[in-house]
Amino acid sequence: MKKILTLAVATTSILSASSLMDDAKNAGLTPIPTSSLELMKLVDNPKNPITDAKVELGKKLYFDPRLSKSGIISCNTCHNLGEGGDDGVEASIGHKWTANPHHVNAPTVYNAVFFEAQFWDGRAKDVEEQAQGPIQAHPEMAATKPHVENVVNSMPQYVAEFKKAYGKDVKVSFEKVTDTIGLYERTLVTPSAYDDYLNGDENAMSPAQKDGLKTFIQVGCATCHTGVALGGAMNAFNITGTYKYQNVGDFKGDANGMVKVPTLRNVTQTAPYFHNGKIWNLKDAIKEMARIQLGAKLSDKEVNSINEFMKALEGRKPTVTYPMLPASTATTPKPDMN
Amino acid sequence: MKKILTLAVATTSILSASSLMDDAKNAGLTPIPTSSLELMKLVDNPKNPITDAKVELGKKLYFDPRLSKSGIISCNTCHNLGEGGDDGVEASIGHKWTANPHHVNAPTVYNAVFFEAQFWDGRAKDVEEQAQGPIQAHPEMAATKPHVENVVNSMPQYVAEFKKAYGKDVKVSFEKVTDTIGLYERTLVTPSAYDDYLNGDENAMSPAQKDGLKTFIQVGCATCHTGVALGGAMNAFNITGTYKYQNVGDFKGDANGMVKVPTLRNVTQTAPYFHNGKIWNLKDAIKEMARIQLGAKLSDKEVNSINEFMKALEGRKPTVTYPMLPASTATTPKPDMN
Repeated sequence: MKKILTLAVATTSILSASSLMDDAKNAGLTPIPTSSLELMKLVDNPKNPITDAKVELGKKLYFDPRLSKSGIISCNTCHNLGEGGDDGVEASIGHKWTANPHHVNAPTVYNAVFFEAQFWDGRAKDVEEQAQGPIQAHPEMAATKPHVENVVNSMPQYVAEFKKAYGKDVKVSFEKVTDTIGLYERTLVTPSAYDDYLNGDENAMSPAQKDGLKTFIQVGCATCHTGVALGGAMNAFNITGTYKYQNVGDFKGDANGMVKVPTLRNVTQTAPYFHNGKIWNLKDAIKEMARIQLGAKLSDKEVNSINEFMKALEGRKPTVTYPMLPASTATTPKPDMN
Repeated sequence: MKKILTLAVATTSILSASSLMDDAKNAGLTPIPTSSLELMKLVDNPKNPITDAKVELGKKLYFDPRLSKSGIISCNTCHNLGEGGDDGVEASIGHKWTANPHHVNAPTVYNAVFFEAQFWDGRAKDVEEQAQGPIQAHPEMAATKPHVENVVNSMPQYVAEFKKAYGKDVKVSFEKVTDTIGLYERTLVTPSAYDDYLNGDENAMSPAQKDGLKTFIQVGCATCHTGVALGGAMNAFNITGTYKYQNVGDFKGDANGMVKVPTLRNVTQTAPYFHNGKIWNLKDAIKEMARIQLGAKLSDKEVNSINEFMKALEGRKPTVTYPMLPASTATTPKPDMN
């Protein structure tokens, strides 16, 4: 029965496949799979498998500002799930109203699980390792590992939820907290009309969006913006070379001076653009990238066409029920604004 | 049929009513009604009746940080629905990391609709008028009316939602925005075991909680903490007189030097306490209030008993589906951190 079903799906797929679909696949563009089993293979963490209890706990921690030194900055402050997964400002503002000293723009958390590396310089290998950074960075959440551990362990409800998620002998360490936040982030994937199209629904994208996808491939955008994330790898430009925008502070990219290719998923919702957040208009960003990365001068028609395609990347966000957090107790560390 | 039903309910009510229930009612303690019609009478705004479209829009605006000058502070930043409706710090931190200059503590937004007046000095008559304050206050969201109007009008989705809510001729003014936020806040009511008890369910509160309610009434707490909100009126202490806590800044209460009685609903989740946020422990707060307001020295047993009662005030929060906000456009005002 299963075999018959597979064959039937395959036949439909062949019948409806257009050459543009093939071109996209040949260019390395891969949809978010429709099968939840296939999706799970892509997003799950073998060392810490996704379960409902962990996800629910991870969501609470993601939204809990008490993890920060001040008690008022959460992961969601700069990676706001209601705002395309970022904060809509050039450089995030953290503890004591400090702008990110690298002057880099907060990337979206949506679909970050698909990235080959995390942070603009790719210094973290996955979302779990990434989650350790901003919590401790002084210009961001400014917390110490003991602060985070003390906060979480001070609330019996949190401890009970960790036991429910990981077993009664769990030790609520900083790493357990960040691993659980990372695990929640693995669920933040946003399939879109583009995925529906690549998964075989010829009509999921409008004719203008399909034209845009064609232009996107022809111009060469898919060289870097490829894979499931349409980005996420360290194969982009050398910022110290051709790319000399203002205000990158002391940010120098990775050891090779390379900067990570950002995802294009939900890109219509994540202005401002580039690692320094200096471009606010998506069409300007498209034009600039073609010029800098591909040495191409795009016509307005091409820019508009690619811009149309980007709309097909607006994803269906998971429904987030806002978490009701455990109440602080007498032993919860007090907020420290200094 | 309807009459029979009413009689039946009345009979049940008489049969199950305890003298404590009567004492509570005689002390002016009123439950949140179970009938949604009765509840609507209490919370609705006759000048701007509650509808689903307005509530959904109001929720988006409540959570939208782009209403602030910086683009990163929303109503929910200081009145966090996941944290008991407040921010858990002594004095809220606003634009440019400025602490509230009055050094007053952010009150919970939950059940604020039941208050007779808003703000600690009661200067706003309802939640709609209150909503105008923090958005414009420089140490809070630091926005101007034109900023707010420009932000909302720059996004076609917002304008469409205003039309859906108020009709096609609606003008999206600052006041329309704050009225809609206030309207959302009217829905943030949290019935609890205490309400179930006062509504006739003898077993809704534990014996210890009922003892606590008895002590609460006997000691005199219900003199000020009364009505549906267990507070919310301007009948409390003269801060320039007996009440001389540190750090009230330039806050002087209302024209008579009076400070609003805070609600006790969800009080276990809204530390720190008092208008200056100087007391972190609920038992200390109970003891201090009895001393200052009632001239009573409570025994530890009485304090513990009242503290038990407070747990019955932990309400059932409305389920909040986190809003996905419209994307900024080319005309949306840019964030300004200065």
